Amino acid sequence: MSDHRDAPAPVRPQPPFEPPYHVVVFTSVRTEDDEGYAETAVRMRDLVKEIPGYLGHESARTPGGLGITVSYFRDAEAIKAWRSVGEHRGAQKQGRAEWYEEYTVHVGEVVRSHGWKRD
Amino acid sequence: MSDHRDAPAPVRPQPPFEPPYHVVVFTSVRTEDDEGYAETAVRMRDLVKEIPGYLGHESARTPGGLGITVSYFRDAEAIKAWRSVGEHRGAQKQGRAEWYEEYTVHVGEVVRSHGWKRD
Repeated sequence: MSDHRDAPAPVRPQPPFEPPYHVVVFTSVRTEDDEGYAETAVRMRDLVKEIPGYLGHESARTPGGLGITVSYFRDAEAIKAWRSVGEHRGAQKQGRAEWYEEYTVHVGEVVRSHGWKRD
Repeated sequence: MSDHRDAPAPVRPQPPFEPPYHVVVFTSVRTEDDEGYAETAVRMRDLVKEIPGYLGHESARTPGGLGITVSYFRDAEAIKAWRSVGEHRGAQKQGRAEWYEEYTVHVGEVVRSHGWKRD
């Protein structure tokens, strides 16, 4: 519902949330098939924001290399809710069919965190 | 001690290790100062391999954007050992002085993981 969804945001890491919270690390190698990928990524970004307990996510991709997306959720129930969204499951299926060569997912409970910023 | 440390490795995600294990997510924005950065990164990569309980790590950086490095350790003791390495502490200090604009660290315990690869 933002008027600014297409405005470039300053690049910032997610903050250190107050533990405990949960983390999902998704590391992938892409295929060369880009069709529909960006649109689906934007749609998933908007959809996940509707999940109660979603805290934020961040992504990086080395050109021609690995991509890493890290998502943060307040609890296991929030992850379960996100996994059960039909449109998300459809995107995962399409990802395996078209966009990903390989991926690994690690799900964990964050016990501590901290941030640092230049003065 | 490898003869192949400079050979390009195929790009692969770290595997889903057998839980429980620990994860350290380091998300950063770099300065424009590259001096000494690559050499230190290589040195740290070699040093961390000597830590008992180190499992692996993976990195991605969007050009001009976020960098994410995710490291995996068998237990909290392995993370503590790595944090206490003097040369690592020196690199962290230099990072704050020169290479990083901002970063966040999240430390967690992985409870489950899985991988997928195209046939």
